[in-house]
Amino acid sequence: IRNGFPEVIYCEGKTIDQVKGITLAMIQRGSSILGTRASKDVYEGVLEIAPDAVYHASAKCIVVNPKTQQLHPERTIAVVTAGTSDISVAEEAAVTAETFGQKVDRIYDVGVAGLHRLLAQLDRLRKAHVVIVVAGMEGALASVVGGLVDRPVIAVPTSIGYGASFNGLAALLTMLNSCASGVSVVNIDNGFGAAYTACLMIKD
Amino acid sequence: IRNGFPEVIYCEGKTIDQVKGITLAMIQRGSSILGTRASKDVYEGVLEIAPDAVYHASAKCIVVNPKTQQLHPERTIAVVTAGTSDISVAEEAAVTAETFGQKVDRIYDVGVAGLHRLLAQLDRLRKAHVVIVVAGMEGALASVVGGLVDRPVIAVPTSIGYGASFNGLAALLTMLNSCASGVSVVNIDNGFGAAYTACLMIKD
Amino acid sequence: IRNGFPEVIYCEGKTIDQVKGITLAMIQRGSSILGTRASKDVYEGVLEIAPDAVYHASAKCIVVNPKTQQLHPERTIAVVTAGTSDISVAEEAAVTAETFGQKVDRIYDVGVAGLHRLLAQLDRLRKAHVVIVVAGMEGALASVVGGLVDRPVIAVPTSIGYGASFNGLAALLTMLNSCASGVSVVNIDNGFGAAYTACLMIKD
Amino acid sequence: IRNGFPEVIYCEGKTIDQVKGITLAMIQRGSSILGTRASKDVYEGVLEIAPDAVYHASAKCIVVNPKTQQLHPERTIAVVTAGTSDISVAEEAAVTAETFGQKVDRIYDVGVAGLHRLLAQLDRLRKAHVVIVVAGMEGALASVVGGLVDRPVIAVPTSIGYGASFNGLAALLTMLNSCASGVSVVNIDNGFGAAYTACLMIKD
Amino acid sequence: IRNGFPEVIYCEGKTIDQVKGITLAMIQRGSSILGTRASKDVYEGVLEIAPDAVYHASAKCIVVNPKTQQLHPERTIAVVTAGTSDISVAEEAAVTAETFGQKVDRIYDVGVAGLHRLLAQLDRLRKAHVVIVVAGMEGALASVVGGLVDRPVIAVPTSIGYGASFNGLAALLTMLNSCASGVSVVNIDNGFGAAYTACLMIKD
Amino acid sequence: IRNGFPEVIYCEGKTIDQVKGITLAMIQRGSSILGTRASKDVYEGVLEIAPDAVYHASAKCIVVNPKTQQLHPERTIAVVTAGTSDISVAEEAAVTAETFGQKVDRIYDVGVAGLHRLLAQLDRLRKAHVVIVVAGMEGALASVVGGLVDRPVIAVPTSIGYGASFNGLAALLTMLNSCASGVSVVNIDNGFGAAYTACLMIKD
Amino acid sequence: IRNGFPEVIYCEGKTIDQVKGITLAMIQRGSSILGTRASKDVYEGVLEIAPDAVYHASAKCIVVNPKTQQLHPERTIAVVTAGTSDISVAEEAAVTAETFGQKVDRIYDVGVAGLHRLLAQLDRLRKAHVVIVVAGMEGALASVVGGLVDRPVIAVPTSIGYGASFNGLAALLTMLNSCASGVSVVNIDNGFGAAYTACLMIKD
Amino acid sequence: IRNGFPEVIYCEGKTIDQVKGITLAMIQRGSSILGTRASKDVYEGVLEIAPDAVYHASAKCIVVNPKTQQLHPERTIAVVTAGTSDISVAEEAAVTAETFGQKVDRIYDVGVAGLHRLLAQLDRLRKAHVVIVVAGMEGALASVVGGLVDRPVIAVPTSIGYGASFNGLAALLTMLNSCASGVSVVNIDNGFGAAYTACLMIKD
Ligand SMILES: Nc1ncnc2c1ncn2[C@@H]1O[C@H](COP(=O)(O)O)[C@@H](O)[C@H]1O
Ligand SMILES: Nc1ncnc2c1ncn2[C@@H]1O[C@H](COP(=O)(O)O)[C@@H](O)[C@H]1O
Ligand SMILES: Nc1ncnc2c1ncn2[C@@H]1O[C@H](COP(=O)(O)O)[C@@H](O)[C@H]1O
Ligand SMILES: Nc1ncnc2c1ncn2[C@@H]1O[C@H](COP(=O)(O)O)[C@@H](O)[C@H]1O
Ligand SMILES: [Mg+2]
Ligand SMILES: [Mg+2]
Ligand SMILES: [Mg+2]
Ligand SMILES: [Mg+2]
Ligand SMILES: [Mg+2]
Ligand SMILES: [Mg+2]
Ligand SMILES: [Mg+2]
Ligand SMILES: [Mg+2]
Repeated sequence: IRNGFPEVIYCEGKTIDQVKGITLAMIQRGSSILGTRASKDVYEGVLEIAPDAVYHASAKCIVVNPKTQQLHPERTIAVVTAGTSDISVAEEAAVTAETFGQKVDRIYDVGVAGLHRLLAQLDRLRKAHVVIVVAGMEGALASVVGGLVDRPVIAVPTSIGYGASFNGLAALLTMLNSCASGVSVVNIDNGFGAAYTACLMIKD
Repeated sequence: IRNGFPEVIYCEGKTIDQVKGITLAMIQRGSSILGTRASKDVYEGVLEIAPDAVYHASAKCIVVNPKTQQLHPERTIAVVTAGTSDISVAEEAAVTAETFGQKVDRIYDVGVAGLHRLLAQLDRLRKAHVVIVVAGMEGALASVVGGLVDRPVIAVPTSIGYGASFNGLAALLTMLNSCASGVSVVNIDNGFGAAYTACLMIKD
Repeated sequence: IRNGFPEVIYCEGKTIDQVKGITLAMIQRGSSILGTRASKDVYEGVLEIAPDAVYHASAKCIVVNPKTQQLHPERTIAVVTAGTSDISVAEEAAVTAETFGQKVDRIYDVGVAGLHRLLAQLDRLRKAHVVIVVAGMEGALASVVGGLVDRPVIAVPTSIGYGASFNGLAALLTMLNSCASGVSVVNIDNGFGAAYTACLMIKD
Repeated sequence: IRNGFPEVIYCEGKTIDQVKGITLAMIQRGSSILGTRASKDVYEGVLEIAPDAVYHASAKCIVVNPKTQQLHPERTIAVVTAGTSDISVAEEAAVTAETFGQKVDRIYDVGVAGLHRLLAQLDRLRKAHVVIVVAGMEGALASVVGGLVDRPVIAVPTSIGYGASFNGLAALLTMLNSCASGVSVVNIDNGFGAAYTACLMIKD
Repeated sequence: IRNGFPEVIYCEGKTIDQVKGITLAMIQRGSSILGTRASKDVYEGVLEIAPDAVYHASAKCIVVNPKTQQLHPERTIAVVTAGTSDISVAEEAAVTAETFGQKVDRIYDVGVAGLHRLLAQLDRLRKAHVVIVVAGMEGALASVVGGLVDRPVIAVPTSIGYGASFNGLAALLTMLNSCASGVSVVNIDNGFGAAYTACLMIKD
Repeated sequence: IRNGFPEVIYCEGKTIDQVKGITLAMIQRGSSILGTRASKDVYEGVLEIAPDAVYHASAKCIVVNPKTQQLHPERTIAVVTAGTSDISVAEEAAVTAETFGQKVDRIYDVGVAGLHRLLAQLDRLRKAHVVIVVAGMEGALASVVGGLVDRPVIAVPTSIGYGASFNGLAALLTMLNSCASGVSVVNIDNGFGAAYTACLMIKD
Repeated sequence: IRNGFPEVIYCEGKTIDQVKGITLAMIQRGSSILGTRASKDVYEGVLEIAPDAVYHASAKCIVVNPKTQQLHPERTIAVVTAGTSDISVAEEAAVTAETFGQKVDRIYDVGVAGLHRLLAQLDRLRKAHVVIVVAGMEGALASVVGGLVDRPVIAVPTSIGYGASFNGLAALLTMLNSCASGVSVVNIDNGFGAAYTACLMIKD
Repeated sequence: IRNGFPEVIYCEGKTIDQVKGITLAMIQRGSSILGTRASKDVYEGVLEIAPDAVYHASAKCIVVNPKTQQLHPERTIAVVTAGTSDISVAEEAAVTAETFGQKVDRIYDVGVAGLHRLLAQLDRLRKAHVVIVVAGMEGALASVVGGLVDRPVIAVPTSIGYGASFNGLAALLTMLNSCASGVSVVNIDNGFGAAYTACLMIKD
């Protein structure tokens, strides 16, 4: 399969040496590279073989030689979060999309408890080709956004919350049961997967 | 304990004769009576001993000799539903409150997938002393209403939905994790319990 | 919001008279109409007011005055099932898409236990703009298809199975954890939701 | 929305610098401030910009410039715990209410295994306008108190317990199924939310 | 093993002919017989071969030739229920104990929402050698009784309830987490098992 | 209530100072004292005020001034474990019983995978007045022992295991569903509760 | 793939006509046929096109033209059940194996509550090449048999039980956590799958 | 029972001294020894008494004096993994089998998202007498391999994954519901158990 996307390394559970090895091989075949779930330590290891690697701390992503060609110049992915604690997952999505050559519009901290903040961003939301909604706790934002826009919504439940949030289960169930049409769901905290799917939609 | 509320019969799992017996005893001590989860058949049995009993079919409630004195003349309970399928639970709440002598404002079918319908009712919502939010599927309405009003919200998850709604579990978790403050939750489909709690708040 | 899609009635839990009333109102405003989760009885009721209504028995869908204009003439949605028992959910998806004016390619009974059957359809799969994968039991088909195509995959877990399938929970979890990128998930048995999302992708 | 309550910072998952920044902005607009789920370290950071900030260690709350005007001079919130391990959550509730200008009556360690201890406090319980019941393990206290008082009970399940308490799930289910009327429930360990709801009831 | 207890047939899922066959064999060896979970139909079948069989409708038990010798003349088992809907399970326990030759004291409908009703029976409770507590919904009665008596308490959760009672799971968890010492638990609705265990304790 | 048992301190989650304070008060009223879930550090603190306190490391119990009078000279509690990893919970049970003045027969490491080891202890098992069975993983030992003895069995599931043992849930469910009569169950890892219940049975 | 096994139709959820159609096609290519989960009605339909089809009522299996050649003349599969209610699942396994040309030794009703019954069959158990253990409720039999034999054990949890058996979940978890080595597990009630796997082992 | 297999020590939760003691006893009776779930520290302790002990770091296994005689010279166990993170569990299986005298063919990192990598190994897969499939996340590989080979497949779910993988539950359910016949399942991460079962099949 050839979609022209960068190569991706899921760093969680890999040693620094393993990540370096994989990175080296990819560099040698000239790939753009995205490393997700990477700690600062892993990044420092990668720097030794890829001195221009960039680290996005909040996203926990390493980027080497990102795509410079835009996936689609007129299309935008909006990445929306309910709270500030969801931003790390949102950044994983945003950095993924940007590394794939895609423009992102970040709309953060517009959870449904303060609807005015969300409604104030309606124009930006409606300009997006796809909307990624990132929310923990009760995850209600996906349904509300789904009702407001006329484009596909990809919902990312996050593990933010406590007690009966059950590490993201509550938000996951909320999003799967969305009464708004056009909402599909990826795994808890899977910002990367949401962005990948969004990019597939963008590139046609 | 004496709160002056009507006596209540939970009819589910009781035989017609049992309900009739309990009703008779209550009539004899002059009580107002509310029978919840009552089938048409149970109602017909009750009619034999309480000819002016009234049946609220959607609420599945029997009412005999309801309170005529208002709990509090200037206060209203708003009962809000997300969809039309939630109305039966909402009516259990509304009929309970009315039998207790409390005025109710029904605001039905204003789920978050069509936010304009909800926002169009903002004035009525904000006039209420307490708001009961009844919603199944993902139950997001409780959070949104909680963010819009400045009064206590009692959230009632319903068993409406399918698949990953797990008979109301999804809505229950959503409501427990509400990012809006001032929301407390009762059992799935427990319209009665929500109204009882609301009436306690009303009567001071 | 205006996306030009038909109006949809979710018939489960509505009386025949309710569905007839809603249908009548929609006919009067000239809408295309899709009724989902409709029994034969509901269809017969609708026939009285919409004599040219069509019933898709396997999909349990009623269609009145479907869209005749194609959403996008060159794009196809592939609807793929693992087994024959999943076909009813797949048909809900297919009929939804067709009612919305969208061409569908049905690829049924290609579950992963007989990989050759799936691989034999690789060309058709790869021609699709979006692929909807419908599978119960262990739901592994979504990951395999996700690995074979370079387009978005919408996974629909079904409640088909027994024992530890827990009414679709096993397939749902499988799909959410898909190791193939580009897979997003809708609720158990939600063929309608998958097709709606797919049509949003198609129409751009 | 304007309810005159202090501004609240949920400190969990925020860096010291983030909390300091938010606090500074709030101080500048003259707000009363409550910081919940705050570690000692966060408090020490806040002290640098708000030298009269007070730390409630058991509650893990920081209070700056609390409300001095009483919410309602004649009304009391009783905060009741089953065991001593539940006190930390109870204190989150009590400190919240006090910061909001509300008088609190603490009735601790009166779990149902020693009913006499609870019954000895009946007068204090019945004087309260609202009762917050904080209990882990089996959470039975909420039902018992609900049966003894004629005012709304807000039940807070705690994560105290082990084994089949499943981090508060057992207490949560107990409370949701309370056979006593007038009991509504908030999230596991959510002392803040219980107090917020109680204060809404108090202030009318 | 020889404990002299009657022979027991668990009738659920057995055909009338199977139960008759087993009963016949038992009669032939002169046993006392207890059939649990028996429908009226099964009883009528058994009557054909055991004309003096007795049917306890609420308990759904068939008794043939019960033990006439008392297990222990001075000891009593108290069987306590929270509500009237729990009586059927309680009767399974009571009839089991009686068939085993054991005196039972039934104390029904003394749930914790009306503590006075329970406290009014304190003398009877404290006279018992073992107490069986039968409760559904939140199952709090087991903890309260456990705190009041100084003898072993066997807790039987029932499937009575709805919504978040999850068919007895809530009551089961409550009872397992009881903060009162001396409480052990049997399966949901297992009145028979509770009585069997109690009789083992009685007979020494 | 007066059963003459020692006073018990559940040390988990209490500070050393708290435990010392409670211990001091108990010593002053001349109590026998059992501290459960106590770390070595807590013990060292207690030693300062109770120099003859004894620490049972495997049981994690502190004992001060244990009962010297036997509960019942002719009765024994057998404490049985499936594996060696269950011994810590078993010791909590054994030390509790011994501190209460009760003789214990320890029969360890006789899990069902090697039935001969269990059958070799049949005599000791059958001599016991009560049998406490402590088992993790699949917890099958409780059923097997229940079938072999004619006395009450108290089953203690442990959190020993991994994967689908779900921290003791598997063993708990096994024990609740025991096909052997006379088995009742306490919370996961609750050796103390099992022994307490057993002692109530012993003392009559 | 060619293993020479009969063709299998899973009849659950298929119409009589569908089963007849599939059967006809199979007959035409000369296959041996096994239909599982088949009602009496389906059998009667099949009889019309396969007059020598045999119906195994307890197993709910239809067999047409079974294998006459033995898989392996000297090897036996033992099929063991804990209770009589498990026999239907056991028969699905036994009939499957027999239809595949394999000799079966049925050892029924030897649950662990009466260990002597099991031990009395030790010789037969130890003669088997593979042992299929079928058990519901707590499913402990698999571990015990696993400890007694030195051959692979395939464990089949059944949905027999009530309350905390959760439709087979308890037995499933028990079997997955078996402390005896050599035990692997198939889905709840999946007698067919167990036999299929056993036959693969037999035929080498 | 005598199957001639090495003796096994499950080191998790044992102290170094305990493992050394058990090892010494085994050495003295001349056993081959396999220690599973052993940390480096435990290995170093064992080295003191068994200087030729070998440590397999990825497998976390200690081997002393492994079997030199082959279980069966012509038979192979294929151990297959979906990802690289599953290799540690796979190595527990492989080292177990090798210590038992069995040849292993390792086929790693052939997950279903890249089907070509799996299909490239079809020959090796089909040469195996038993196939052990080790997979986390969605665990789909077991079904696909089950469909490709004609020998028993033992599926080992791993705890690799995040979010809705629920520590291996998703993979476990997937494997239990496999639509491919001939697949049986062991506990999450139980590489040892899979290899043990496979060796029982091999040795006949
Ligand atoms: N099968 C389905 N599953 C989930 N949602 C559906 C389904 N069919 C229709 N809907 C949604 O239900 C809405 C109509 O609901 P209602 O107003 O209750 O008829 C439609 O606009 C769709 O968003
Ligand atoms: N302990 C708590 N539990 C749940 N919600 C809280 C808690 N403390 C504060 N909050 C909510 O969190 C909001 C502030 O969140 P943030 O903007 O992330 O600081 C407040 O307005 C409260 O609604
Ligand atoms: N290991 C244990 N598990 C459960 N409950 C215990 C345990 N040890 C002591 N307890 C109970 O905890 C009570 C003391 O709790 P506390 O007052 O918090 O020290 C005792 O009276 C016992 O009922
Ligand atoms: N990784 C493992 N997972 C499950 N069981 C194991 C494992 N390794 C060893 N065992 C079992 O544990 C037994 C030894 O347990 P123990 O006597 O506690 O050392 C062995 O006979 C095996 O049956
Ligand atoms: Mg939309
Ligand atoms: Mg509000
Ligand atoms: Mg793909
Ligand atoms: Mg009350
Ligand atoms: Mg007691
Ligand atoms: Mg017994
Ligand atoms: Mg064995
Ligand atoms: Mg196969």
